[in-house]
Amino acid sequence: MTYCLGIITRHGLILAADSRTNAGVDHISTYQKLFNFSDTGQRVLLIATSGNLSITQAVINELNQDLELKDENLHSLPTLYDVAQYIGGKIRQIQSQERPWLEKDRIDYHSTLLLAGQVRDEAPGLFMIYSQGNFIQATPETPFLQIGETKYGKPILDRTLTYDTPLEEAAKSALLSIDSTMKSNISVGPPIDLVMYETDSLCLRHQLRLRSGDSYLAKMRQLWEISLRQAFEQMPNIEWEHIEDKDIGEEGS
Amino acid sequence: MTYCLGIITRHGLILAADSRTNAGVDHISTYQKLFNFSDTGQRVLLIATSGNLSITQAVINELNQDLELKDENLHSLPTLYDVAQYIGGKIRQIQSQERPWLEKDRIDYHSTLLLAGQVRDEAPGLFMIYSQGNFIQATPETPFLQIGETKYGKPILDRTLTYDTPLEEAAKSALLSIDSTMKSNISVGPPIDLVMYETDSLCLRHQLRLRSGDSYLAKMRQLWEISLRQAFEQMPNIEWEHIEDKDIGEEGS
Repeated sequence: MTYCLGIITRHGLILAADSRTNAGVDHISTYQKLFNFSDTGQRVLLIATSGNLSITQAVINELNQDLELKDENLHSLPTLYDVAQYIGGKIRQIQSQERPWLEKDRIDYHSTLLLAGQVRDEAPGLFMIYSQGNFIQATPETPFLQIGETKYGKPILDRTLTYDTPLEEAAKSALLSIDSTMKSNISVGPPIDLVMYETDSLCLRHQLRLRSGDSYLAKMRQLWEISLRQAFEQMPNIEWEHIEDKDIGEEGS
Repeated sequence: MTYCLGIITRHGLILAADSRTNAGVDHISTYQKLFNFSDTGQRVLLIATSGNLSITQAVINELNQDLELKDENLHSLPTLYDVAQYIGGKIRQIQSQERPWLEKDRIDYHSTLLLAGQVRDEAPGLFMIYSQGNFIQATPETPFLQIGETKYGKPILDRTLTYDTPLEEAAKSALLSIDSTMKSNISVGPPIDLVMYETDSLCLRHQLRLRSGDSYLAKMRQLWEISLRQAFEQMPNIEWEHIEDKDIGEEGS
């Protein structure tokens, strides 16, 4: 499995991904899932991938090849919406080649991508591009999108993120969301790749790869656990009901 | 969907459940999913249910009928293990009657139960009984079991629960786990039923039903959100890498 998430706020973008892939429990590997296709000064384009690795690698390869060989490519398309549509088209092309062969052996061929970035003279944007090639866009009301193993890390985002959250805080929120997921699900694992982009800078100044046992990750995790425990101890005591009120009753008696 | 969880510690048991069921988004209802079959002084038996409502209601009805009509029932079986096996048998009986009819129309017939309790002269136990009638038991290394929509509420349990956790704290942990799930997933909803059982008491002294808008729930949620935000602000600042080190590189350039 995989866990990637993108965040958009009024201050910029965050994209984060783990690096674990698995095909069964006896075939666990590390693959980069966060890719930078930026053309500094002109456009920032970041892609995170989840799902069937052969499909997502093929898509990334096609995107790279087009940059070398084709006029229509990630750097030439005029808007971020056009870029999302073009990537959706690539997914459809690869899916139509590969899917019949994978489907025969009941191998999951799905793959979902996040696209985060900004094209000069446009606002930044964050898209989720589905396995079917269609896509949705994050909005101020829903400022984050997740792909892969999304549920474990969602509560922390729901409680801490809004469109007005400062960018550094949003980055911490993303790290904690991935760290919570890693703790609860072994199919998501380090290194964690994290990129923070400030609106209108048109270049990437902040990125980070946190490896297993990284001191920042260890410090963050320790502090988080202490804080949770403290929060926990401050919770008001439960006001139990008198047993006479018994709401759940007693069956069969 | 549904979310129920059971916790076993050296001090006793916790069983908790939400009350929302849904058959599509336009058919959301409230049903009790936590049932008390105790025989005070002799045995405490608590059951929480998830999955197809017609199946789980049939199982609960059969358990009640046997208490009236049969010699072999929840109050006569000599051990908790026997009780788990008997309930597994009931699930198999109902499944074999109902499954062919539901399967024809591709209706999900799965149903999973939690059984928590203590039979006199035995230690307390916590079981998860699967839709297939087989079951597993919680142990000191894995002191909680979840059924239904389990992922959102798992990180908080992973970070706060051990076999040595005091019972009142375990109860708070359970409430926060359900509350986190309710916040992130609309298919899980109030009222929350919560029961706490102290080892060897052989009676239920602590139970609680928290309805939507309940003042304790509101207070707990507010305090939790403040604590999370504080924890969050205390996180060390991210030490970004110099962009020269760029680990994720730049594709196509």
